[in-house]
Amino acid sequence: MSSPKIQPRTLKGFRDFLPDAAIAREGLIDTARAVYRSYGFVPIETPVLEYLEVLLGKGGDESDKQMYRFEDGGGRQVGMRFDLTVPFARYAAQHIGQLGTPFKRYHIAPVWRAENSQRGRYREFVQCDFDTIGTEGLASDIETLLVIHDLMVALDVGGFQVRINNRKVLSGLLERLGLQDRTTPVLRALDKLAKIGADKVAAELEREAGTTPEQARDVLALAELTGEGDALLDQLGPLVAGSETGERGVEELRGVLSAARAAGVPEGRVRLDVSIARGLDYYTGTIYETFLDDLPGIGSVCSGGRYDDLASLYTKQHLPGVGASLGVDRLLAALEELGRIEPKSSTADVFVPLFSAERLNDYVGLCATLRAAGLAVELYPEAKKLGAQLKYADRRGFRAAVIVGDDEWERGEAQLKLLSTGESRSVPLAELPEALRTALG
Amino acid sequence: MSSPKIQPRTLKGFRDFLPDAAIAREGLIDTARAVYRSYGFVPIETPVLEYLEVLLGKGGDESDKQMYRFEDGGGRQVGMRFDLTVPFARYAAQHIGQLGTPFKRYHIAPVWRAENSQRGRYREFVQCDFDTIGTEGLASDIETLLVIHDLMVALDVGGFQVRINNRKVLSGLLERLGLQDRTTPVLRALDKLAKIGADKVAAELEREAGTTPEQARDVLALAELTGEGDALLDQLGPLVAGSETGERGVEELRGVLSAARAAGVPEGRVRLDVSIARGLDYYTGTIYETFLDDLPGIGSVCSGGRYDDLASLYTKQHLPGVGASLGVDRLLAALEELGRIEPKSSTADVFVPLFSAERLNDYVGLCATLRAAGLAVELYPEAKKLGAQLKYADRRGFRAAVIVGDDEWERGEAQLKLLSTGESRSVPLAELPEALRTALG
Repeated sequence: MSSPKIQPRTLKGFRDFLPDAAIAREGLIDTARAVYRSYGFVPIETPVLEYLEVLLGKGGDESDKQMYRFEDGGGRQVGMRFDLTVPFARYAAQHIGQLGTPFKRYHIAPVWRAENSQRGRYREFVQCDFDTIGTEGLASDIETLLVIHDLMVALDVGGFQVRINNRKVLSGLLERLGLQDRTTPVLRALDKLAKIGADKVAAELEREAGTTPEQARDVLALAELTGEGDALLDQLGPLVAGSETGERGVEELRGVLSAARAAGVPEGRVRLDVSIARGLDYYTGTIYETFLDDLPGIGSVCSGGRYDDLASLYTKQHLPGVGASLGVDRLLAALEELGRIEPKSSTADVFVPLFSAERLNDYVGLCATLRAAGLAVELYPEAKKLGAQLKYADRRGFRAAVIVGDDEWERGEAQLKLLSTGESRSVPLAELPEALRTALG
Repeated sequence: MSSPKIQPRTLKGFRDFLPDAAIAREGLIDTARAVYRSYGFVPIETPVLEYLEVLLGKGGDESDKQMYRFEDGGGRQVGMRFDLTVPFARYAAQHIGQLGTPFKRYHIAPVWRAENSQRGRYREFVQCDFDTIGTEGLASDIETLLVIHDLMVALDVGGFQVRINNRKVLSGLLERLGLQDRTTPVLRALDKLAKIGADKVAAELEREAGTTPEQARDVLALAELTGEGDALLDQLGPLVAGSETGERGVEELRGVLSAARAAGVPEGRVRLDVSIARGLDYYTGTIYETFLDDLPGIGSVCSGGRYDDLASLYTKQHLPGVGASLGVDRLLAALEELGRIEPKSSTADVFVPLFSAERLNDYVGLCATLRAAGLAVELYPEAKKLGAQLKYADRRGFRAAVIVGDDEWERGEAQLKLLSTGESRSVPLAELPEALRTALG
């Protein structure tokens, strides 16, 4: 049949993952899961499609505009989730009675946003969130920091720094200045500090938040404080003196930093940074951002914070929480750029070429024995020329080949060849599992 | 704020996974991945959304009707994938030049079908497919069987049987009877044998496939052959004698069965079953179905077969292949019904109650030490009454609690309590990692 072909292509802004990329992503996600689980976070799953009313207006105008939405066959207005936070809020409202509090969940799944793909953004990407809800305990703020830290160590990202701040400090200052109702425009202006500089932020504070020049100066004085740890904390005190919120913020920062030391986090890996604001109005306490020493320009690879109430749109139950989100695709791209991901196109270490179809059962039996010994083994499915088979193995990056021709079968031996060095030696078949384990480390 | 609440609910036919169900599904998928990887299958990923023309008409009328489809913001007609085979065909056509052949992939991901949810079907479910394409080698048919076998063993499903057949046998018989152009209606009729019995199938063969009564009898004679292994194979010979296709089918079955023995598969776990037809016209060689001994009624939990050409709709390149699909949700339901899944709501084994907020850093440090020793540990985030904290731990199914009150801190000891038995003993803090590892096995 040579009917006209349909062009095989993906939608604009979407992509396939070839095996090397898919293997790297699976590895990263497995590591993240292991870290989340080591703290007792549990997985949940929610549907990709939700009632439109559940999603609409929850992520701001931008999210609404970028949402994939349609009417389903039953006349329901539905949307594809654009993040994992809104579905989690809906989920928590629906199930928290059964789940109980505190509740610690992770959720690793794709989300969809019809972003302008000219900016190199993908319209389908994986989020990797963890949150603790139903508690205001500072222990959870501390734990969130430690999870981020352990994640970065486990993912072998090289040097990194988790920067923390606490929204209550700024709130305290704004209270003291009588600006507590201007939080949103103040945050929006401060978020631009690194980009546009202090003068322009001051101008925006006056223009958009209606501050006096003196108030703008005081707000900027906070964001521009430098120094480290306790010394910096001591400078914050006077700026928020008299504001209960502000003083609590300083105490919380002190608690989180001292607990990080108690958990053995090396100095320098966690830093108080009073300049981070995290645009969203949503956060109310500790906030987190994470930067790679060797690629600071890509921005934060793991961010989050404490919020007052997760699910107020869906339930009266008050659900304070704290959590963060790992930028899977951003981090993968970074690790690749840094050469910290070894490209692999194979999941098995050992390659077995097939010499003759007549001996197929011998090869099948040999591979079964090796697998039973815990080795991952691929048998080539056709008795092609050895050169072609080894070329296949090279291309896919197997680490070792077990070569058994007719002579070797007669002698009960195999050639064990290390594909990286080309080094080869004879091994009795009975000793092959052990020899391979040793050779592969 | 007590604004009117949005009702938190999922769409009809969709569901949330609570932690126990999500933990069980993650476990099953991890096991499947490990088995696929042990044979060198590699992961791929494709977008959830595809151009409608890529999906439409590929799964038959039913799939078209059940597809979620819409026009995106850029005016493109798009659909959500309804299986993983069609996207794989599109993917293979697009990338096979780069991937090379043979190519062995697994793909574990959700798919969507707007099924009639009154039949208890879900509209979002996970498929778990593996395929080898670009080779006609019988080694791949054998490997497919071994993967299914190893999957069932690794998933600890209890007794099971993989039933195999080969489409070429029936094709050979139909050739001999001059009915080679009636394959589809013959398959459709034979598929009903177990349900409606031989007489009604014979009637359908005459009515729908236009056979004579004698031809119907011959076709049924094949499907009703009983017996085991070589004896059964020997009976097949005469039925297809003279048809090259049919004789090849018998030889392939013989090869697959003998290789299973060579791989050490216990007798009885694989059975030649000439009655399985697998409705789809698509298969052309070996076919596979898998039944649980204790729940045969749920049907096959892992099915597949060999096909002639994967991607003929998208490319001229001929891509024969063989593969199968594990029914993740069906199998999970079955294992639950059989009591073979221990319900778990916790991912950590060890629970540490928090006695006093003043000592928070000591608890944080202790947990960090235990995690560094490879243990998964959850610290309760608030210094509530011990009883409430232990109730939380019980409910979630932690296996051990490490209880350290003020007295214990003074003495440098902890109470190690096994939550299943209530048994408790004092352990010096320094010996805790080792004691926990021993206690937890």
